[in-house]
Amino acid sequence: MSPGALLEGMLHGNAAVQRRAMSKAITLLESTRADHRAQGDELLTQLLPHTGKAFRLGISGVPGVGKSTFIEALGLYLIGQGHRVAVLTIDPSSTVSGGSILGDKTRMEHLSMHEKAYIRPSPSSGTLGGVAEKTREAMLVCEAAGYDVVIVETVGVGQSEIAVNGMTDMFVLLQLPNAGDDLQAIKKGVMEIADLVVINKADIDKNAATRAEAQITSSLRILSQHGNPENAHHNETLWHPKVVQISALLGQGVDAFWAAVTQFRQLQTANGRLASRREKQALAWMWERIDAGLKLAFRQHPQVRQLLPQMQADVAAGRIAASTAARNLLLAQSSQAQTAIK
Amino acid sequence: MSPGALLEGMLHGNAAVQRRAMSKAITLLESTRADHRAQGDELLTQLLPHTGKAFRLGISGVPGVGKSTFIEALGLYLIGQGHRVAVLTIDPSSTVSGGSILGDKTRMEHLSMHEKAYIRPSPSSGTLGGVAEKTREAMLVCEAAGYDVVIVETVGVGQSEIAVNGMTDMFVLLQLPNAGDDLQAIKKGVMEIADLVVINKADIDKNAATRAEAQITSSLRILSQHGNPENAHHNETLWHPKVVQISALLGQGVDAFWAAVTQFRQLQTANGRLASRREKQALAWMWERIDAGLKLAFRQHPQVRQLLPQMQADVAAGRIAASTAARNLLLAQSSQAQTAIK
Repeated sequence: MSPGALLEGMLHGNAAVQRRAMSKAITLLESTRADHRAQGDELLTQLLPHTGKAFRLGISGVPGVGKSTFIEALGLYLIGQGHRVAVLTIDPSSTVSGGSILGDKTRMEHLSMHEKAYIRPSPSSGTLGGVAEKTREAMLVCEAAGYDVVIVETVGVGQSEIAVNGMTDMFVLLQLPNAGDDLQAIKKGVMEIADLVVINKADIDKNAATRAEAQITSSLRILSQHGNPENAHHNETLWHPKVVQISALLGQGVDAFWAAVTQFRQLQTANGRLASRREKQALAWMWERIDAGLKLAFRQHPQVRQLLPQMQADVAAGRIAASTAARNLLLAQSSQAQTAIK
Repeated sequence: MSPGALLEGMLHGNAAVQRRAMSKAITLLESTRADHRAQGDELLTQLLPHTGKAFRLGISGVPGVGKSTFIEALGLYLIGQGHRVAVLTIDPSSTVSGGSILGDKTRMEHLSMHEKAYIRPSPSSGTLGGVAEKTREAMLVCEAAGYDVVIVETVGVGQSEIAVNGMTDMFVLLQLPNAGDDLQAIKKGVMEIADLVVINKADIDKNAATRAEAQITSSLRILSQHGNPENAHHNETLWHPKVVQISALLGQGVDAFWAAVTQFRQLQTANGRLASRREKQALAWMWERIDAGLKLAFRQHPQVRQLLPQMQADVAAGRIAASTAARNLLLAQSSQAQTAIK
């Protein structure tokens, strides 16, 4: 199918046609074949005017925190409110094992069967940056198809959360009421980027959940000070990260959670931060892709490939300074082009 | 002076000749002129066999923590023990202001006057990566000149500490006994890389210092678990980060501090981690310099410079996908070379 036909199916097809067009479009965008990539770029450019109207919600949490249960409860709640919900994932483990521990449709049995929900597992090969690129492009496909809430979920060790935060309007961290879990999140730099922290399984031990809420609230306050108490003044036009307790299993607190999300969205729209965040994300994304492309071209360059093993061995053995080796290798990459020009 | 003459002065000159040769060598290495850079590379390669015998100690802490006082006390103590001490700095603020808030010789009045000490302020221009490169090369000069303890100090917001950790054998974090300071350090990723945490000014409030020690010890234990208590088993051949209290102003605790450093050094030498850490650092350094070089060449490429403003505007306005723009720009860089080859 041509990019135009795919777009037509996504925009105007009935439910079955639309779903098929979305899956074909995402598969096209995931392909690494050069001709597919050219078609994919054409599709993306055609798609873009139809994107951007969804709310992009990032959700993260360690295994066992109850992400699937929470996202299913949230998704069904949102569909009940008239929304259409897409769930995408960035699963760093899938790039190693080829199998995804997230995004498995059987995890969200009720949601995945609903015609107003679209669930797509994580791409299963490439670097984290490459996987995140595919997820970001899949998000644009979902938006063009009229899904107005796109949830991007991840589990990871800091890097994948940063990637999800770099493509969503709001970043939510799911936590359990366990001592020390908040320190782990701070260490990974995940607490710092959270717009909202959700304490799940609050029903199991109400006292522990309340202690965790106080602890995390205090941490968020300290982190937002950047070491300077004067920065901590309250400004009503700015969002201050919040903590809410829920029990996804019992379906408790989902409405309060969505009320907080809605409040965030209204505030960020009114103060212009939603638009500026998306603009910054797009530019950062472009540079991230450029960096990845430069590194790949460098490593594949014939002169570099020839020289690299010796340079690495010399640097490791202390026979040549790292900065000298870097200059030699950069020269090797550029010298062939110069020779060819002569 | 030729690289050979500089090296000769460093290795065999009297105190005055050596000091002059060191300063000239570091100035040569800091120069960005192409001919100087070639001479600098020659000097580095000649230097290398005479380096690596010093212990490389990284010291970090926020302004006001008492770094200068501590380093002066430590430096004088070490000279008393028969060592020769070099103090280098990485000051991220110097790359913005051109002036250094660290490395000012007047900060360490007694140490800077001592003939067995060599103090050199932070290079004052370039990116953090560029500044770190110069500091790393200056470290090699100091080692060749026979300084057997090289201290690299920094103050920053996380990035400069990572840079210092990437060039030293041991990373020490100076903290004040203030509530919340440990969370700031965890947030910046600095606590996580600390081999030793020093609580300075412990004399002012002994109770607060003891509370801070307990708090930081607990944080270090949790951080080292990586979320899994089973990883926290004690292994006597591995170093476990420690906390010590000192009062740099009163000169209290410097001997206990150095005893901990010595214990670390012996353990890391015996278990092979000191050597493997240096090898990894050198290779990481090479790749960091390659990445910086690739980015610079990209941004300076005529076709890229011509296309970039339009691409950035289109991406920011949502007229073109970030990944498409990245591919266009990468193509622009490579197409000129191809055209020239034809």
